[in-house]
Amino acid sequence: MKIITTISEMQEHSDRLRNEGDRIGFVPTMGFLHEGHLSLMRQAREENHILVVSIFVNPTQFGPGEDYDSYPRDLEMDASLCREAGCSLIFTPDADEMYPQGNVTTVSVPDLTETLCGASRPGHFDGVTTVVSKLFNIVRPHKAYFGLKDFQQYRVISRMVQDLNMNIHIIGLPTVREEDGLAMSSRNAYLYNDERSGALTLSRSLDAAREMVSKGIRDPRVIEEKVTGLIESEPTTRIDYVSVVDADNLTPLSTLEDRALLALAVFVGDTRLIDNAVLEINED
Amino acid sequence: MKIITTISEMQEHSDRLRNEGDRIGFVPTMGFLHEGHLSLMRQAREENHILVVSIFVNPTQFGPGEDYDSYPRDLEMDASLCREAGCSLIFTPDADEMYPQGNVTTVSVPDLTETLCGASRPGHFDGVTTVVSKLFNIVRPHKAYFGLKDFQQYRVISRMVQDLNMNIHIIGLPTVREEDGLAMSSRNAYLYNDERSGALTLSRSLDAAREMVSKGIRDPRVIEEKVTGLIESEPTTRIDYVSVVDADNLTPLSTLEDRALLALAVFVGDTRLIDNAVLEINED
Repeated sequence: MKIITTISEMQEHSDRLRNEGDRIGFVPTMGFLHEGHLSLMRQAREENHILVVSIFVNPTQFGPGEDYDSYPRDLEMDASLCREAGCSLIFTPDADEMYPQGNVTTVSVPDLTETLCGASRPGHFDGVTTVVSKLFNIVRPHKAYFGLKDFQQYRVISRMVQDLNMNIHIIGLPTVREEDGLAMSSRNAYLYNDERSGALTLSRSLDAAREMVSKGIRDPRVIEEKVTGLIESEPTTRIDYVSVVDADNLTPLSTLEDRALLALAVFVGDTRLIDNAVLEINED
Repeated sequence: MKIITTISEMQEHSDRLRNEGDRIGFVPTMGFLHEGHLSLMRQAREENHILVVSIFVNPTQFGPGEDYDSYPRDLEMDASLCREAGCSLIFTPDADEMYPQGNVTTVSVPDLTETLCGASRPGHFDGVTTVVSKLFNIVRPHKAYFGLKDFQQYRVISRMVQDLNMNIHIIGLPTVREEDGLAMSSRNAYLYNDERSGALTLSRSLDAAREMVSKGIRDPRVIEEKVTGLIESEPTTRIDYVSVVDADNLTPLSTLEDRALLALAVFVGDTRLIDNAVLEINED
């Protein structure tokens, strides 16, 4: 397994691989890898000749006061997990390599980034779409893999790739959970003991929402209220948002039909966690 | 010479060319080709195996009330000029092919687009950078050629390519002029007789500015005033802007040093024309 830290070497390497007819699968990450990342890597390994994983904690997608400095990092552990997962190459540049003259050019997808996490974290998605554009141009993958825990991110990147004709196949894979239901996240490392159990309210409230839908409830407001009540009953939590939206364009829904997304962002102690469920309505 | 109108066919074709080791030179245009475009095409032909020319009048870079509808179009003449210039392939999609779901994702270079034409034509450069990003992803050139008559456009695209790591060599070539000095432009077709002669005030005022610099004048305001006076003395003209800026970052200069750009936008009758000169200061 090769570790590359410069853009020029990565581009040369990708060009060579492509010229040799290799198909490149790409998993962009901020490192501190967990089973969620590994599931992306396994799928990418299966579907391509070459698996490239990027590890880059991207400063431009963190807002002021957010956890850029404290975001967990462990390159040695990450490299060992990547090696086990059959990764051919890690691309791990530093911030000066990625932004040598600051961050002037910006890629944005305004229609999909003004709600949910985009509303709570202004500028976050511009940081994501810009760095992912850069990474796509550097790694030149055929397919790229994203976890559906970050559902809005998956939708935003899919739309960007489509709008800008990037000719990359974007694949979203299901959220991987701990045995007790907590969605895997590098930020789970921040949770103290009582917070760790409080955090279960996220996945449990999603289960409750699915249950309501299966019983025929179709009013998004009723579901949002129930979920809000469940989360608020847990003392360690503070809700950022609870929203039922259209799963494609992320706009609010007045009634549940086809595919709706129930998306949550909740502070557990000081740690902001997100989770979501796609609510499929299959009526005859 | 092949004419391609769909994105998917163009992408397949480019992939094939690249896999065969061909180097692709690209000249993006809005058609109604003139000697300026042809000079780009000749250079591109010389430096690459394959010359691709795109012809697309891009709606998103025209503002409300601008000349999108009346912009001159003549695909048959363009195709014949391309053939003569050794072009391998014309890519000429329609607006529905390029924007099937509107124009959501936007690429912008705010630092360089708030002055000069960017100030006069809000949204213009976002339209340019977004469509050029799309075209680059569709055509996948090794080198792309732009005329320096649109100096700000050249700088904006160079910066975009650099910031987003597009791995494309951007080449700017000198403005081609009519014998009497008028910069070649598809919009010159709009000029009535007396306007055609009035339009000469643009290139003449650039000459006057160069003369002032050679005589040792270093105050940008003095040059701007002189140029403004010359242009205003011509009855068919109305100034949009006359600015001396740094040729790299396009910010205003308090004194002339190294490389300054004198940029003009002038309405001649109803036709908005631009022209510019790079003022090189070589002092010991």
